[in-house]
Amino acid sequence: MTTPRFGHLPDGEAPAEGAESFATLLAEAGVVVERIASHRAASPEGFWYDQPSAEFVFLARGSATLAFADGTERVMAAGDWAVLPAGCRHRVEATSAEALWLAVHLPPA
Amino acid sequence: MTTPRFGHLPDGEAPAEGAESFATLLAEAGVVVERIASHRAASPEGFWYDQPSAEFVFLARGSATLAFADGTERVMAAGDWAVLPAGCRHRVEATSAEALWLAVHLPPA
Repeated sequence: MTTPRFGHLPDGEAPAEGAESFATLLAEAGVVVERIASHRAASPEGFWYDQPSAEFVFLARGSATLAFADGTERVMAAGDWAVLPAGCRHRVEATSAEALWLAVHLPPA
Repeated sequence: MTTPRFGHLPDGEAPAEGAESFATLLAEAGVVVERIASHRAASPEGFWYDQPSAEFVFLARGSATLAFADGTERVMAAGDWAVLPAGCRHRVEATSAEALWLAVHLPPA
C-alpha cells in the first residue's frame, strides 16, 4: 500500500484534568509513533518509565517537566525534543494544560 | 548510555530562500529522526522521492504542499502529519518561509 495518510496532531482526545490520552498514529517495522495529550498530568507517584528501547519525544504544545532517576529534572517548552535512551528511568513530573506530545518508540537496538 | 539528550527544534540552520537544510537528531536501530528546515523550497523539477521504507513527517511550523505521483496534492499546515509509505512517490511542491519539519525514517518493513 503506497497511499499516504494524513492527520492533524491537535485533533483527537482532550483528556480531563490530571489525565493523559494515547493514540497510535503509526506502528510499523518495530516503530510506534504516538500522540500523547496531557492535561496537568503526572506519572503516578513512585512510578518510573524504564523502557527496553529508546524513545524520541517532541513537545508540540504546552510545557512539561520530566524527572530522571538521578534526581535531575528538565523543564520542556513547546518545540523542545528529548531522546530517552533504553533504560533511562524517567517520569512525567508535571505538564501544563493541553500539553501535546509526539512520541517515537524505536525498535530494540 | 542512558543519559537523555535535549534540543529545541527551531534552533539550527536557517536556510536561504529556496533552500532546505537537514540535520540528524537521532540515528539508532535503523530509525533516523531528522530536522528539516525549508525556506520557500521545492524539490527539483521532475524529481520524486521514492524511498525503500516508510517515513513519518510532522510539520511543526509554516505550511507546505506535497505532490504525489498520482497527480494529487496535499496542502499541509503547522500541526499536520503525514505517513508516506515505502514506494509512495512524492515531492515537495512548495513551502512557506521558515517551514520546519520533523521527519522519522523507518527501517525497512
